[in-house]
Amino acid sequence: MIGAGWAARFVLNGCDVRLYDPAPEAADRAAEVLEDARAAYGQLTLAPLPLEGELQVAGSVAEAVAGVKLVQESAPEQLDLKRELLAEADREAPPEALFCSSTSGLRPSDLQAEMARPERFCVAHPFNPVYLLPLVELCAGGRTAQATVERAAAVFRSVGMRPLVVRTEIDGFVADRLLEALWREALWLVNDGVATVEEVDDAIRYGAGLRWAFMGTFLTYRIAGGEQGMRHFLRQFGPALEWPWTHLTDVPELTEELVEKVAAQSDAQAGGLSARELEQLRDRVLVRVLQALRAEEFGAGATLAAWERGLLGGSEASVRRVPAEWVDYNGHVHESRYLQLFADATDALLGELGVDSDYLAAGASYFTVETHLSHLRQLEAGDRVHVTTQVLDSDEKRLHVFHVLLCEGEVDPVATAEQMLLHVDTESGRAAPAREPVSTRVAELTARHEALPRPDRAGRSVGVR
Amino acid sequence: MIGAGWAARFVLNGCDVRLYDPAPEAADRAAEVLEDARAAYGQLTLAPLPLEGELQVAGSVAEAVAGVKLVQESAPEQLDLKRELLAEADREAPPEALFCSSTSGLRPSDLQAEMARPERFCVAHPFNPVYLLPLVELCAGGRTAQATVERAAAVFRSVGMRPLVVRTEIDGFVADRLLEALWREALWLVNDGVATVEEVDDAIRYGAGLRWAFMGTFLTYRIAGGEQGMRHFLRQFGPALEWPWTHLTDVPELTEELVEKVAAQSDAQAGGLSARELEQLRDRVLVRVLQALRAEEFGAGATLAAWERGLLGGSEASVRRVPAEWVDYNGHVHESRYLQLFADATDALLGELGVDSDYLAAGASYFTVETHLSHLRQLEAGDRVHVTTQVLDSDEKRLHVFHVLLCEGEVDPVATAEQMLLHVDTESGRAAPAREPVSTRVAELTARHEALPRPDRAGRSVGVR
Repeated sequence: MIGAGWAARFVLNGCDVRLYDPAPEAADRAAEVLEDARAAYGQLTLAPLPLEGELQVAGSVAEAVAGVKLVQESAPEQLDLKRELLAEADREAPPEALFCSSTSGLRPSDLQAEMARPERFCVAHPFNPVYLLPLVELCAGGRTAQATVERAAAVFRSVGMRPLVVRTEIDGFVADRLLEALWREALWLVNDGVATVEEVDDAIRYGAGLRWAFMGTFLTYRIAGGEQGMRHFLRQFGPALEWPWTHLTDVPELTEELVEKVAAQSDAQAGGLSARELEQLRDRVLVRVLQALRAEEFGAGATLAAWERGLLGGSEASVRRVPAEWVDYNGHVHESRYLQLFADATDALLGELGVDSDYLAAGASYFTVETHLSHLRQLEAGDRVHVTTQVLDSDEKRLHVFHVLLCEGEVDPVATAEQMLLHVDTESGRAAPAREPVSTRVAELTARHEALPRPDRAGRSVGVR
Repeated sequence: MIGAGWAARFVLNGCDVRLYDPAPEAADRAAEVLEDARAAYGQLTLAPLPLEGELQVAGSVAEAVAGVKLVQESAPEQLDLKRELLAEADREAPPEALFCSSTSGLRPSDLQAEMARPERFCVAHPFNPVYLLPLVELCAGGRTAQATVERAAAVFRSVGMRPLVVRTEIDGFVADRLLEALWREALWLVNDGVATVEEVDDAIRYGAGLRWAFMGTFLTYRIAGGEQGMRHFLRQFGPALEWPWTHLTDVPELTEELVEKVAAQSDAQAGGLSARELEQLRDRVLVRVLQALRAEEFGAGATLAAWERGLLGGSEASVRRVPAEWVDYNGHVHESRYLQLFADATDALLGELGVDSDYLAAGASYFTVETHLSHLRQLEAGDRVHVTTQVLDSDEKRLHVFHVLLCEGEVDPVATAEQMLLHVDTESGRAAPAREPVSTRVAELTARHEALPRPDRAGRSVGVR
């Protein structure tokens, strides 16, 4: 699962990947994961993705690592197996290749023990789904060169990740210690019959989990401390730490009975969705959450934005994605947002005609005085849309335009807007002739667009009959 | 903090609130929180919010609880103090009032011990910020009537929350046990110098925290188990539970040194942002995350959507104030916001015609297919506006309406909107005749409005000449 996730992230970032896995179903599984990741990236970003890398399945370790720049070991969590694999790959890979292990808890010093070139090895521990979650924990072993960790950080940053360098070599690094603590307590709650697995999940996802998604635990609690911050919080809530709330002194024994209880409750919670369907649901929601965080450029959203800026290289796309917050209680995009898209298109047109910040500051502008909207079919959050604009007519004060809203790659309009703009002296608040250079450009554009066919819906009025 | 958060949630849901807090700064703090909550709700939803309730500060417990329907105790976590407060309020409040405590861990049986009417009391434990996070844990004490928990669930659901009934009375309920487990491990990591508070938060918010926001822990791990689900996961990863990764056998002592270390790292992490600024940042991001989840109607997003559908049912055409965030770069209200006001008026009309949440749930709705807007003069932030609506015509599938936007107390329209609505079977996505009782009400209202003069601008089309 983790190896296939890595493969998908690198392939979609334009890197060729060779996969070695003795399991017969591994190739199919990797293809499935790549397909899911491709769908997720298609929703995630409007930035132009690089040409996909190639995903090949290798028949041996030697074939997999021949000529590569990075070896990412993602074998099961068995020290001997991983150690042996790494030693073999170390002998076969180019001497300058970087070596990383996806282990979620084994120590890098133990893993690199049998490598001939241990200095080029560190842990790079990712999280499911690897192609969407940005976190990768980097941890050096006793024989790792400092440059190796820096090199790894640069590689993972280049494919949109957020490296977290774990400075002390401990079992479980940082993230899995936290996950384990929560997981143990969750198992106890189910074991003791206090809550079902669904109730435990609900206690997280309707409450603190929403904050964890972007602030973690310390920053959240700092806010609870008010202006005196963490000192006040620790003084106020510290004593509660001593309360015997948790079972943390022990680990629940995974008896057949407990396994059956957890598994049966989990089946009920899944409501008939297969693991694949749950994966796809998880990815869809994760994409929305990442985009939500990007809107504030905070947490994982800042990581996403930085990656996209890298992909864009500064260029601007006229295609826009319909954001989730435009959806109303019917599950459709609110009608006022259609007008927002058209108004943005009008702004873009005015910008091209010379109505810029200087023109506005000089006391002149076009105002919309009339709009006729036709809704022809529905938009959904995530749709990629653009607007085409045609000038139907103009005079010295008026500008008559017709917009068509289209989904990318389609020809049937989603909606149309016919607008009349009036040129205004913003100081007097009265209509006034457009000024240079706008007036000339308006006349030129009107003349050029006169040759275009008149849209069917132009001049339409509202009425039942 | 919790009390002010409750006050904000109820006031914004149209309930009058009386607040009793002996702290001198409590009233100012509550006003600040209400202001933040108002800003958050303004961004969160397009649904028409009810007229705000009134927030009053009471000088005593008796004054606070006189005539109320719900008493929500949110005092500091001291059993004696809470018990005494609840007993006093119990004597002064109407006998039919519901009693809840915001305690995050004290047992309801202990809290209700000195109440004369303990049967009407239960715990209702919310999470910060109370006005945005939907979770509220409900827990009955030994003397709580079953009907009390059901009544509380209905109250909290009506203000957009997600009640989770904790069936076993344990210290810390469910959510805080999980939070505590994570928090203890986090403190150990900082105590031992493995990670700073910022690194701990990053280990959460760039990784598992993103999944916790909507799937919790069990559903996430189920996916990792593949098609065999949780049984496979427990068999594969269960043994790791025995690994001595965590410090969970003990609680770190909050020495002066540890408090200082955590607090100093937290100051560095906050990067100079005040608690208020962090709160506002948290709210902005939470709003985005909730909207992201709504787009998939999953987790907390489903709760949000249900609340919005409820608001639609209770909407009433009334005077609204134009909010400052509607102003565009010209200093005027953005044209799309005029359409938002008209769309709200259409929603209010549809509500009166019987298009309520049941009607929508049954798969029928009216969609706007055409709109003609005329902008006659400008609005400014702070203007108090209302919309009048006239039905011009209708048939079994169509509803033709004419809206006029007016500033309060004025007769010259600010703008007009003529709209054609089409009745749709939302499952097939096709036009279909309106159903009862809507169809009869539409016909009746159309007949009544036939006597009204036809607006001058009705039937108008856009054009220069």
